[in-house]
Amino acid sequence: MLDVWVLGADMTRIGRRDDSLQDLMAEAAHGALRAAGLEAPDALVVAAMNPEEFVGDGNFASNVGAYLGLAGTPAIRVETATSSGAAAFYAGFAQVAAGLRRTVLVVGGEKMTHLDTPRVSELIGRSIDPYERSYGATMPALAALVTRVLMARHGVGPREIAQVAVKNHANALDNPYAHFQRAVTVEEVLESRMVADPLRLLHCCPISDGAAAVVLTAERAAVRVAGIGQGSDTLALRHRDDLTGFAATRAAARAAFAMAGFGPERVEVAEVHDAFAPFELISLEDLGLVPPGKAGHATLDGETARDGRLPVNPSGGLKARGHPLAATGLAQIAECVWQLTGRAGRRQVDARVALAHSIGGLATNNWVTILEVERSQALP
Amino acid sequence: MLDVWVLGADMTRIGRRDDSLQDLMAEAAHGALRAAGLEAPDALVVAAMNPEEFVGDGNFASNVGAYLGLAGTPAIRVETATSSGAAAFYAGFAQVAAGLRRTVLVVGGEKMTHLDTPRVSELIGRSIDPYERSYGATMPALAALVTRVLMARHGVGPREIAQVAVKNHANALDNPYAHFQRAVTVEEVLESRMVADPLRLLHCCPISDGAAAVVLTAERAAVRVAGIGQGSDTLALRHRDDLTGFAATRAAARAAFAMAGFGPERVEVAEVHDAFAPFELISLEDLGLVPPGKAGHATLDGETARDGRLPVNPSGGLKARGHPLAATGLAQIAECVWQLTGRAGRRQVDARVALAHSIGGLATNNWVTILEVERSQALP
Repeated sequence: MLDVWVLGADMTRIGRRDDSLQDLMAEAAHGALRAAGLEAPDALVVAAMNPEEFVGDGNFASNVGAYLGLAGTPAIRVETATSSGAAAFYAGFAQVAAGLRRTVLVVGGEKMTHLDTPRVSELIGRSIDPYERSYGATMPALAALVTRVLMARHGVGPREIAQVAVKNHANALDNPYAHFQRAVTVEEVLESRMVADPLRLLHCCPISDGAAAVVLTAERAAVRVAGIGQGSDTLALRHRDDLTGFAATRAAARAAFAMAGFGPERVEVAEVHDAFAPFELISLEDLGLVPPGKAGHATLDGETARDGRLPVNPSGGLKARGHPLAATGLAQIAECVWQLTGRAGRRQVDARVALAHSIGGLATNNWVTILEVERSQALP
Repeated sequence: MLDVWVLGADMTRIGRRDDSLQDLMAEAAHGALRAAGLEAPDALVVAAMNPEEFVGDGNFASNVGAYLGLAGTPAIRVETATSSGAAAFYAGFAQVAAGLRRTVLVVGGEKMTHLDTPRVSELIGRSIDPYERSYGATMPALAALVTRVLMARHGVGPREIAQVAVKNHANALDNPYAHFQRAVTVEEVLESRMVADPLRLLHCCPISDGAAAVVLTAERAAVRVAGIGQGSDTLALRHRDDLTGFAATRAAARAAFAMAGFGPERVEVAEVHDAFAPFELISLEDLGLVPPGKAGHATLDGETARDGRLPVNPSGGLKARGHPLAATGLAQIAECVWQLTGRAGRRQVDARVALAHSIGGLATNNWVTILEVERSQALP
């Protein structure tokens, strides 16, 4: 297997955007190509969760390829629900690692804010097990159920969960790409509108538009893909033995760290899938970044703050940077690349190893990607 | 790059099926696993063109994985419109060739016949360039336009085109998996109902349900993937210089033969994308299997018949075996595997090298896959 490197990365400003999905993807893709110093890649991998229903276009790999001015470049689309960006990164990684392509442009995006919230909820709900969906389950409703179990069995209280949102909103204040640039307090989180008990509005990521892109190469570059792993789990929540953690994350982390040849103790910054604030706590433990049962305290104690032992979601995370579905996995990776190469502006942390963690559906298809910078390229 | 082998393949009967899409995929997937002698693969690649709108389910890789009883197996979905099955095969190939997985199950399927024809036409129409679509273009309308150009500039007449359908219907008589098992005559084709002048009903593939699956492995097996190539072209038909051939097929063939290390002269059987009968003539020349301008005569002369120099679509092709979109690329490959290993029953030909050719959208994303059997495994 060839070593695979990240040659360039970029993303759009995330939020309510008037641009078309294709325009957003072009902005991110051309930004990543510029950052990579590359005119055209050997191949293209496109991630979009459901362009047919979100924007009415199909054959979307070819659609985006043509829009980018790369109609002659072989393109495929990859989809794993809300982790599609991370899955597309993996598909590009496999092509480069096999020696099938020298350079691959991976671009993911979603356009959602032009639809009303019930319609968005319906489209995202297609990810849920059909039987559970038939009883009216929505993604926030199932996430609330998981949160209740977490609170009952794992000693996590409302303040620990709220602090995730407070921290990530604070981080996003310094991120010009973020959907939200406003601080929130624990009290504001706990008094915000109820969505699905115990989850309130400020526990939940927003509906966002945006795109992100990464260029992969077999040539030596500053940032190497040290490890990549995928894990899966039952579609139906009721078929799982345990709801205080996600087996799909644990499997993905095991595979990624096995490939990297080191463990979680070397990770110095992480972008973690916090579509709902409690998911950050669950995931920190699943990833082995925090000991079991300690994520709540670690968060309250500031261990995961930007100036803490292990900065988590310096970008603001899905909660505050935003969550344009298929863009998110790649936006996390772009943030990691920027952090590793000293391009993260006022939110810069000191790190040589970064981890990105993406959840597909209700943790049915999760990814862990570990990036490492050459020591000579890292910040002093 | 590791050598990649096909360890097993299977498909469902294609046609009007009352089973769910998941049932069809399970039938093909478990058949392929049985043929491979494998309990569970290391990974799963799922192809479906648009399960959200065809059957109302998303997160489809996880959905199918769980349905197969493989909820713990990492799965991704791959989509390139009507060539999604071939694209998924490539994604699985890349994972095995890179050494990321030892065995990958690739399964593709589509369920369409429960929808009325205008709705199917609308959903397939999402593959067309949005501007051309906005003027009412449908896939048959654009294929008719290509056919007119072919007839005007390339000396192909109605009888040559009709003969493709006659030959493929004749082949399907011996295929128990085929949608149609009835012979048609040139006269019947030329008198069938007009769809889009000059294309008539019997020039066009049917709307079909079905699924197909292939197991790939890095361990030596009977059939090796000798070459695989992808080509792309402009989404908009009006942006192309030439409509008498498909640049995407030519690029895919170049790449596949380059990887194989031999040329079209070694191909002894081919499954070619004949969604519309004239596409078989166009493709035979694009693939280099017949000299430029000769496909019509070769077809009339019986060169591509099952007992001819180069049997083309012994399965009956998309025209008569049927075209369940994302299943098709894999059904072609399954047919090639069966032909190479002496399992094609009454339609068996004598071949050591087989080629499968799949068209995505209106030839925006095409694939060529070349399979080779070990000499000792071939028919005497």
